[in-house]
Amino acid sequence: MATETAPAPVQRWLEQEARALEGGGFRLVPGGVTAPAGFRAAGAHGGIKARRPDVALVVSDRPAAAAGAFTRNPVRAAPVELTQGLVSQGRLQAVVITSGNANACTGPRGEEDARATGRLAAEAVGLDPAAVGVCATGVIGVPLPMAAVARGVRLAAARLGRGAEAGRAAAEAIMTTDAYPKTLALEYRGPAGAFRVGGMAKGAGMIHPRLATTLAVVTTDARLEPDRLRRALARAVARSFSAISVDGDTSPSDSVLALANGAAGPSPASPRVVADGLARVLGWLARAVVADGEGASTVMEVRVTGAPGRAAAARVARAITRSVLVKAALFGRDPNWGRILVAAGTAGVPVDTRRAGLRIGHVRLFDAGAPADHDEAEARAAMDQVPVVISLDLGSGGGAAVAWGSDLTRRYLELNAAYRT
Amino acid sequence: MATETAPAPVQRWLEQEARALEGGGFRLVPGGVTAPAGFRAAGAHGGIKARRPDVALVVSDRPAAAAGAFTRNPVRAAPVELTQGLVSQGRLQAVVITSGNANACTGPRGEEDARATGRLAAEAVGLDPAAVGVCATGVIGVPLPMAAVARGVRLAAARLGRGAEAGRAAAEAIMTTDAYPKTLALEYRGPAGAFRVGGMAKGAGMIHPRLATTLAVVTTDARLEPDRLRRALARAVARSFSAISVDGDTSPSDSVLALANGAAGPSPASPRVVADGLARVLGWLARAVVADGEGASTVMEVRVTGAPGRAAAARVARAITRSVLVKAALFGRDPNWGRILVAAGTAGVPVDTRRAGLRIGHVRLFDAGAPADHDEAEARAAMDQVPVVISLDLGSGGGAAVAWGSDLTRRYLELNAAYRT
Repeated sequence: MATETAPAPVQRWLEQEARALEGGGFRLVPGGVTAPAGFRAAGAHGGIKARRPDVALVVSDRPAAAAGAFTRNPVRAAPVELTQGLVSQGRLQAVVITSGNANACTGPRGEEDARATGRLAAEAVGLDPAAVGVCATGVIGVPLPMAAVARGVRLAAARLGRGAEAGRAAAEAIMTTDAYPKTLALEYRGPAGAFRVGGMAKGAGMIHPRLATTLAVVTTDARLEPDRLRRALARAVARSFSAISVDGDTSPSDSVLALANGAAGPSPASPRVVADGLARVLGWLARAVVADGEGASTVMEVRVTGAPGRAAAARVARAITRSVLVKAALFGRDPNWGRILVAAGTAGVPVDTRRAGLRIGHVRLFDAGAPADHDEAEARAAMDQVPVVISLDLGSGGGAAVAWGSDLTRRYLELNAAYRT
Repeated sequence: MATETAPAPVQRWLEQEARALEGGGFRLVPGGVTAPAGFRAAGAHGGIKARRPDVALVVSDRPAAAAGAFTRNPVRAAPVELTQGLVSQGRLQAVVITSGNANACTGPRGEEDARATGRLAAEAVGLDPAAVGVCATGVIGVPLPMAAVARGVRLAAARLGRGAEAGRAAAEAIMTTDAYPKTLALEYRGPAGAFRVGGMAKGAGMIHPRLATTLAVVTTDARLEPDRLRRALARAVARSFSAISVDGDTSPSDSVLALANGAAGPSPASPRVVADGLARVLGWLARAVVADGEGASTVMEVRVTGAPGRAAAARVARAITRSVLVKAALFGRDPNWGRILVAAGTAGVPVDTRRAGLRIGHVRLFDAGAPADHDEAEARAAMDQVPVVISLDLGSGGGAAVAWGSDLTRRYLELNAAYRT
């Protein structure tokens, strides 16, 4: 599927980050959403896209607790409205995802098409439509080609499987302009019990210029009540998908769904540890989305400390990852600390430069209100690392947060400025 | 000075916009800040930059009412802090502007350098330092070279003149990466009195990658109390400099200063008409800054109507002009209405797509919640106009606002990604 891969240093970073998830009873296992017990998945080509797979199914053998996090953009795609309503009941048993068409800004017809997609999937796998979440990603403003959707759903249902290959096929079928599928699974065995958690995500890509969307599905065979799952998901998303930026534009389709089916066995694992596993998987998937951000040649990790609270720290970190000028400097490997400080000031959080300090890598560039003497060659070298680690201490409290962003490259512009055909 | 000019269609737009300011008693007159009676100006090269002029002076023959609008970024340059304090007294008689170095993020030394710049200018023109506003624009985080500032101030003071040439010299001396000076003046003669108002501005440029700043100075020989001037300026800035975006980054140095010296004569003009003149000049200067935005190949004018209020409409309009994806589509001349709707949703204002309508030029692309049938060739043709007029009706109230933005081009990236030397 993938015609390109991330630059080698970016790939190495992702691999390191995956290995860093191990420990505390967790270890990496093959597969994604199918790694936990009792989940099947598949991908198929129905014809929404010209050639690549475009329909994915994830099905649990038994009803599962479900939780979701959805875009905050008031311009919302029809499947988001539908699935948020279903998830609010706390139960789902399957998810169908179509790629290549977001079914967004498509009016009443789009609402009916979203429901029809759910009905088609429910029939194909023998479930009630109320148990099937629906997601879509791709072109905005074009009606969903329902014949292609029906064909893809039928094919995918016939191919549902449990192995790592099936999980990967589903991850490939949700890609749009992603260069590679993003999938990861962890197993926990320890005093808190035994379970697996796996997930898949797609990135923000816009080769076809009206595509937009981040989608992720995470599964676990741990037993967790819907309320507990909801809280765990909200917390994990705040530190993962809500902490990344590729181009500062919020999609109308962003959705993260979590399913917990309890198939790991009769003795439930500690909810705290399950939440930890969920956070690890989502954290990595979010970083993988940044690493595969359109045209990205490198990644920044922005660590803000000393803020009045976590929310303030997160706002400042995201403002830096969103700044066009910081992204352009990142592309040019320019240790341009002035732009970073100025971008921090756009977050709507009080920033007192007299108390602030800023480092890139280990090189201190600004300290307590004034430029810090530093070796320019060392600062440039810090910009060649992946990720480029930007540490901003606001000196105004105990709040801390981390955000990740990609750079703004010529390739990004080429991908997004070309007239769509 | 200028090594480049705006693309011809962009220049034509600016000329049309200038001519459109005439009427209602107003007509264009030559010159900028020196067009009103009792104002002198000059530009000189002191050595902050290698070759181009870098110190500008604007001096009123008599004390003038003064008002200012300053950056809301809490990361603020030293001259902003100083001048905002001076302007709060309501009186200034001169402004000194240095370009090539923003004196921002420079700590206590920067504060002292800003005061020293004011003292040097005050001595050179025979005024109290409290009567001299100080602005700076350019590199962030580098101490101001005070010997060069002193030389430039001395030379500029010796050259102070009243003609259009003097006004133009000042406008050239505040440029950083601007392609051309931005200067305009209007004369009013009518039942409401007689006066002139003139101004100059510089654009957001970053060829040397830590430059940032928009500055504008507007002068009038009308008599206006400081409070009245302040209100008129606030209103004009909200509809001009607060309604433009080149790259979404807010400079630590943004300053707009207005001086009203009453030299037009003993019978004061109607404050309402003076405020109108001020708004016309600032409105045009702001559009000129967008037209000369770094790398800009075209301009969008975003007209939002049907919002719950003017502030909401302005937020939506600015969110569209800020969107990286909309800017990339503008660069590619792609009538990508989906991106525009989605960007509108990021403004933090409720957007109900079922009531919204969107046009580019005269081509309706989205209507009451669904895509509108349209001729694709007509939509493309609308993208080739300058400006590209985007009209978004939210269908939710009577609030309306306009914002202007430039496109995101390869040239922008080249200018801002190159490692600074």
